[in-house]
Amino acid sequence: MNPRDRFSAEPVARLATVSGDGEPHLVPIVFAVDGDTIYSAVDGKPKRLRSLKRLANIAANPRVSLLADAYSPDWSQLWWVRADGICTVVDSSAPAVGALTAKYPQYREVSLDGPFLHIAVTHWSSWEASAPGEP
Amino acid sequence: MNPRDRFSAEPVARLATVSGDGEPHLVPIVFAVDGDTIYSAVDGKPKRLRSLKRLANIAANPRVSLLADAYSPDWSQLWWVRADGICTVVDSSAPAVGALTAKYPQYREVSLDGPFLHIAVTHWSSWEASAPGEP
Repeated sequence: MNPRDRFSAEPVARLATVSGDGEPHLVPIVFAVDGDTIYSAVDGKPKRLRSLKRLANIAANPRVSLLADAYSPDWSQLWWVRADGICTVVDSSAPAVGALTAKYPQYREVSLDGPFLHIAVTHWSSWEASAPGEP
Repeated sequence: MNPRDRFSAEPVARLATVSGDGEPHLVPIVFAVDGDTIYSAVDGKPKRLRSLKRLANIAANPRVSLLADAYSPDWSQLWWVRADGICTVVDSSAPAVGALTAKYPQYREVSLDGPFLHIAVTHWSSWEASAPGEP
């Protein structure tokens, strides 16, 4: 599976943002991929407070990194895919609502009122453990 | 479960570092927690190449963020724990080897030759979804 497809199929990724003075910040996000664009939503009341930091960071520094990974006690099965890109925050987004609702049935039952993150991926990178016996 | 114990029990976390010019970088790591110190290793041949970026970033900016999270299709079960701290890179570390080998039987079969990351956690933060019906 190519890295983008493998990333796209995961239900959760982690979003790293950086504050204006260089402090990293991490949150898990649900997301949907369309080509080289990743959509996510800062949605719903329970997330409102914790969203402020990531939005302030993106306003100060739009460079973001997202990671999807699989853990297994069998370390020959490990893999990860990373998407590095530039994030824009928009108040409303028909493509984001469409992509997220299509991927997550849960979004048909909770609010999806934004703001939305549009991440233009500039670089996909990936790694997987060698099969046993491979160099 | 308190946030530190919940984090500690997870097999994998994600490490965010930041380059000297403010670019975020993410990799999954295995790790062990002792009090407010997190140990990890940049071990083994397959990881050598991808380790360079995180080590260069830590040299430029020791502030790191680590995240453990649980995904479930039942979004009332979601939780995450984040550890923000300051990272030091050391060439050899008996406490890191001891803690990592105790947590991961896999480390008895692969090289654990460092370098090692010592992360002094300055702040633990956590979130969990409200149970259904809660405000």
